[in-house]
Amino acid sequence: MTGHLAIVGLGPGGLEHRTPAAEAALAACDDLIGYGPYVARVAARPGQVAHPTDNREELDRARHALALAAAGRRVAVVSSGDAGVFAMAAAVFEAVEHGEPAWRALEVEVVPGISAMLAAASRVGAPLGHDFCAISLSDNLKPWPLVLRRLRAAAEAGFAMALYNPVSRARPWQLGAALDLLREVLPGSVPVMFVTAATRAEERVELARLDAAQAGQANMRTLLIVGSAETRVVERTGGGAWVYSPRSAA
Amino acid sequence: MTGHLAIVGLGPGGLEHRTPAAEAALAACDDLIGYGPYVARVAARPGQVAHPTDNREELDRARHALALAAAGRRVAVVSSGDAGVFAMAAAVFEAVEHGEPAWRALEVEVVPGISAMLAAASRVGAPLGHDFCAISLSDNLKPWPLVLRRLRAAAEAGFAMALYNPVSRARPWQLGAALDLLREVLPGSVPVMFVTAATRAEERVELARLDAAQAGQANMRTLLIVGSAETRVVERTGGGAWVYSPRSAA
Repeated sequence: MTGHLAIVGLGPGGLEHRTPAAEAALAACDDLIGYGPYVARVAARPGQVAHPTDNREELDRARHALALAAAGRRVAVVSSGDAGVFAMAAAVFEAVEHGEPAWRALEVEVVPGISAMLAAASRVGAPLGHDFCAISLSDNLKPWPLVLRRLRAAAEAGFAMALYNPVSRARPWQLGAALDLLREVLPGSVPVMFVTAATRAEERVELARLDAAQAGQANMRTLLIVGSAETRVVERTGGGAWVYSPRSAA
Repeated sequence: MTGHLAIVGLGPGGLEHRTPAAEAALAACDDLIGYGPYVARVAARPGQVAHPTDNREELDRARHALALAAAGRRVAVVSSGDAGVFAMAAAVFEAVEHGEPAWRALEVEVVPGISAMLAAASRVGAPLGHDFCAISLSDNLKPWPLVLRRLRAAAEAGFAMALYNPVSRARPWQLGAALDLLREVLPGSVPVMFVTAATRAEERVELARLDAAQAGQANMRTLLIVGSAETRVVERTGGGAWVYSPRSAA
């Protein structure tokens, strides 16, 4: 079997944050597979076949990629950010586990990328500078009570948090409920950062206190960071602030 | 004030995983500040001044960088991986908060990097493919009972975990105690990944079951990943395995 499958993290958007390893994997592939807007972020070279698909088709997309690689093609599956964080890499290995035995002989390479949480954190300072969690607020693939349980556990144990998938058309109320739960556990002064389209031209950063944070400040392209009770806000001369989570904890 | 401070994540080691934004920030600086082995990973250009320092001097190093920038120099502080994750960015903002008022007027830029946990995860599959935590096992700056409390909370709530700073000469027993605690909470079959020097020539990856994992499998350059009870191991034809945490949870 001579096919090859690369699962590639494109980074957050700005090309200056895409690694040379990712660029090399994209340049080397015959087939480019992923959610349409992500495939559109790759400059196709002549002879390359792009297969943009809709969102929410991760497993079908993974099987398609594996079948092409098993047929001898050189395939790249792309995700925004890092492919291993709430993205295509887990879908590909799930498809392998439950799919054709021959897929277990394929050469599969995961190429890391700058994840949304790292890009977002860099825009406001160092809010993930100490122990932290990454939690998806989507209840498409897990029960909502489990999301709440994890939020509570993380807040009670003093983790800062990166919240992925805060809102979508099909999930309009979940972020508000999540913020309400966090307000039960954490002081109202905890900083909440809404970072939308980090590193892109339309980037927007909003900083709020937890007791004033509004779900409406987020959209589908927002990564939320919620500090711990120890997270600090440092006012800058001339306006604005940096946020960081101290290296020490009591 | 015309100085500039960039806090730059160098990525995990292999230059193919360092972003163009990081390379540009390094090329543009007059002064390069960081832990000696990290400064050594940057190709100095003529006229640039390197200030390699010992480990465990983060705050002094941060103040030095801020003072140089306040004097009008263009300064880069470097960390391995991502500078915002258990690294220099939090130290710099801590130094700003407690330091010279003039430092609050400086232009400070954080340049994200491929973090150790993302590089390590990419080597074994997608073990951080669903909700996860990053926890430092170092009790230099926080009490050991707090480390144990966070490990227990994360395990009980079903997070996968990236464990930073698993062992050092001054902290020889902590990882063993952490594994013992995790064995109380999680099934013995949970996969544990010891990824040492990810993406470098001397990279080493070891996969163990939690009930057989040994602290001696880690050294100072190891990033540990501990799965959740739902994390899967997919055997590969011809040996080896991929590990992934499913996108869905019950």
